[in-house]
Amino acid sequence: MHSAEEISDATGAVSTGSDDTLSSSATTNRKTSTTGANGAEGPIGVKKENKRSKYRHVAAYHAKVRHSSLTREPNVTASFLGFRNLMVIVLVAMNLRLIIENFMKYGVLICIKCHDYRKQDVVLGSILFALVPYHLFISYLIELTASKQAKQVVGQRKRNGSAEAAERDQRTFRLTWWLSAFFHCINTLLSLGVTSFVVYFYIHHPGIGTLCELQALIVSFKICSYAFTNRDLREAMLNPSMESALPEIYSSCPYPRNITLGNLIYFWLAPTLVYQPVYPRSSHIRWSFVAKRLFEFFCLTVFIWLLSAQYAAPVLRNSIDKIAVMDVASILERVMKLSTISLVIWLAGFFAVFQSLLNALAEVLRFGDREFYTDWWNSSSLGGYWRSWNRPVYLFMKRHVFSPLVGRGWSPLAASTVVFLVSAVLHEMLVGIPTHNLIGVAFAGMMFQLPLIAITAPLEKIQDPSGRVIGNSIFWVSFCLVGQPLGALLYFFAWQAKYGSVSKMGV
Amino acid sequence: MHSAEEISDATGAVSTGSDDTLSSSATTNRKTSTTGANGAEGPIGVKKENKRSKYRHVAAYHAKVRHSSLTREPNVTASFLGFRNLMVIVLVAMNLRLIIENFMKYGVLICIKCHDYRKQDVVLGSILFALVPYHLFISYLIELTASKQAKQVVGQRKRNGSAEAAERDQRTFRLTWWLSAFFHCINTLLSLGVTSFVVYFYIHHPGIGTLCELQALIVSFKICSYAFTNRDLREAMLNPSMESALPEIYSSCPYPRNITLGNLIYFWLAPTLVYQPVYPRSSHIRWSFVAKRLFEFFCLTVFIWLLSAQYAAPVLRNSIDKIAVMDVASILERVMKLSTISLVIWLAGFFAVFQSLLNALAEVLRFGDREFYTDWWNSSSLGGYWRSWNRPVYLFMKRHVFSPLVGRGWSPLAASTVVFLVSAVLHEMLVGIPTHNLIGVAFAGMMFQLPLIAITAPLEKIQDPSGRVIGNSIFWVSFCLVGQPLGALLYFFAWQAKYGSVSKMGV
Repeated sequence: MHSAEEISDATGAVSTGSDDTLSSSATTNRKTSTTGANGAEGPIGVKKENKRSKYRHVAAYHAKVRHSSLTREPNVTASFLGFRNLMVIVLVAMNLRLIIENFMKYGVLICIKCHDYRKQDVVLGSILFALVPYHLFISYLIELTASKQAKQVVGQRKRNGSAEAAERDQRTFRLTWWLSAFFHCINTLLSLGVTSFVVYFYIHHPGIGTLCELQALIVSFKICSYAFTNRDLREAMLNPSMESALPEIYSSCPYPRNITLGNLIYFWLAPTLVYQPVYPRSSHIRWSFVAKRLFEFFCLTVFIWLLSAQYAAPVLRNSIDKIAVMDVASILERVMKLSTISLVIWLAGFFAVFQSLLNALAEVLRFGDREFYTDWWNSSSLGGYWRSWNRPVYLFMKRHVFSPLVGRGWSPLAASTVVFLVSAVLHEMLVGIPTHNLIGVAFAGMMFQLPLIAITAPLEKIQDPSGRVIGNSIFWVSFCLVGQPLGALLYFFAWQAKYGSVSKMGV
Repeated sequence: MHSAEEISDATGAVSTGSDDTLSSSATTNRKTSTTGANGAEGPIGVKKENKRSKYRHVAAYHAKVRHSSLTREPNVTASFLGFRNLMVIVLVAMNLRLIIENFMKYGVLICIKCHDYRKQDVVLGSILFALVPYHLFISYLIELTASKQAKQVVGQRKRNGSAEAAERDQRTFRLTWWLSAFFHCINTLLSLGVTSFVVYFYIHHPGIGTLCELQALIVSFKICSYAFTNRDLREAMLNPSMESALPEIYSSCPYPRNITLGNLIYFWLAPTLVYQPVYPRSSHIRWSFVAKRLFEFFCLTVFIWLLSAQYAAPVLRNSIDKIAVMDVASILERVMKLSTISLVIWLAGFFAVFQSLLNALAEVLRFGDREFYTDWWNSSSLGGYWRSWNRPVYLFMKRHVFSPLVGRGWSPLAASTVVFLVSAVLHEMLVGIPTHNLIGVAFAGMMFQLPLIAITAPLEKIQDPSGRVIGNSIFWVSFCLVGQPLGALLYFFAWQAKYGSVSKMGV
């Protein structure tokens, strides 16, 4: 109707009225009768009230100066919302085409019975999986001993409050801490070391190995957090002061009342790596919520498996020759083909674990704080991404590595470097040990984050939205489109070089 | 900083302060000195003013109930702007990959010297191109005669103003109109007929043929508009009345003063198909604007040629076998592969012609109304698309076909059907004649718009944005992703079936 209004504005008495309804007949049913009636009166019987000229071929459609909407002129703003829809449609169409192409090339590659794993892998994996949590029990025993000793000190102090006694208490406390720290270290190293050794040398299947290694890492994180937190709680009890005020949420379970097996088991199961004597809790369990999340998790797992078997595996297999002869154009083509698939797998995997699984677990445990991630997809810097995609690990690193180091006078840059160094070692363990190839790619990838963070940090602060778009694009390209598929390709190549056969999993 | 603020809100006295700077070291240079100074004072010397607890391992990071941002909860709104960037990046990456794949398969297919056209095509095309505008000159002569006669009538009427004379004037006017209409028809049909005949039988090259046919169509449109408009102007002069008031913009050049060769030549060159004695004009020619538009046009033309030769031609060639044996999956795959390419060619071609070329032409002619298109890419219905993508043809159809029919009492639906019928015939002429295959696909495609318009018209009126998104998606899929590539494929197949050789143009 826009142009008709403009024309009638410009031509005064000569209105083109409802003529703009060409090809939008459905919208003009209301007007049809009026127009028809006018028409029936013939060219002579036009009513005075109707300002329409009887001469229809003379309407001045070009009545004023106007700009094309794509010309950059002041006062001309164009909306491009339609192109957003087009992008989605083209993406869907391009990927549908690739699905058809893949089907015509390979047929159906999915095969449930073809999956080969050795019996030894399953047995060893199950034993490891069952044994690792006992390390948490050992750390409980260590803390129980330490807490008993602390209670004893507090009891003695009531009877004998001299300065000399306080001095002696302090010494005792330090000795207790060093002893318990020593045992905690042994405990953690044993947990990680035994698991890594068994996985690296005796569990061939990379999937089973990854699960075992992941559990050992999580348990180690939890032991560390449990030990550090209880150390500080103990010291706060021994030296009550304004400065050592504890969070109010802990007041319902003061030290050492939190050193119970039940409290530890809750921490073991809870979707967090940061120990707190008390957590915010939800009021009740919504079982329908749990069911929905588990259903999501199941569907996404199947989806990821289909993608890996049908789409990722052929791409990986076809790229072996090209990597071997270092054909750069072909490697680039393979990385790009893999990048879309690995991106979808990554997004699905993220949703499956951080949204579906952790939310289901939290709901069952009535764990209140569900912020397992924030909107990392909008990150305008790599730093923003690492702060937001995996909150459990981020919070652990912040509370037990970064913050204490800064408290001791380290610069934030140095403390961040330590955090990424620790993270790089753990990533290499998590990827390199189950694939039996400690080739250092995961380590290097994590360390490479530091310069990327430094480069993108200024972009985050630019007020103009284009800075944020550039930062966000650098994040997506470096992380999801280059980093991950390249890493997957290199570990797959190393696996092939070592074992010579193609894993049916395609990992 | 978000989470740190939340935590400090929740924990009261125990603030985690600047600890949230983990991995964003660059943003915390300002704070480093403060933190460092505090740290240097050691665990004992914490100042009262600084509310930080000296125990860093006890901070309550899980201090309140929070939802995951992807969980659908009231008060939880997530922003997905980052995914828009990701879509753009993935589109670029996927197409870059296809470019590499294409290069590895075919090498460079672009070859300037390889282009084969017959000498006869060029000679005949040039003659046609030069002769067609003379039909406009003939229509000028017809209108000149008619205007002289009308002036004579007006002169006679001044001397003899009886009712009988008015009756006779009316008869004379009608006779003049039927005579001039007859000659205009002959003229138009000759212009279209001769061109179509020569192109169909004697110009092999489809590109040269299309240019000739297009010019003949444009000139025919202009002759029609010139004839109809002058008919109404003449009648308005003979019967001056309130109802026949003309647009004010025409007052500077009243009939018959507009019947001059200069006025017609301006209409011939002007980027419009709708004749007006007077057009809105811009004040001066910005030659830099003209140069920029022509540069755009040149670059886009080269771009389209590269796309056609390097990407469209192989896809079309590879699809011949599949169409011949009616392999549905393969045809679908080919249409999808072609759709992205044809979409880009279409968008580039639209911009080249409707933005660059027509704006350059308008600037040189100081033609003021540059609304050659409106934002058709946002169309939420097919009707909206046809009203906005090609304004010159739309305005012609509206003024000289749709509006007069509605004025005679036709329903808008019937009038729209006539418009699309005319348009379908002209589309088939424009595509079928230069490719020497009047297979009716373009005709059917245009007629198929009517049901699509009827289906999408209700979507346009839905208040909810999702209705508009659905309508817009139907438009993109039906028009750009299925209609155009399928049409191109069918005409290419017909061409191959008739001539058996692959045109190096790939059209």
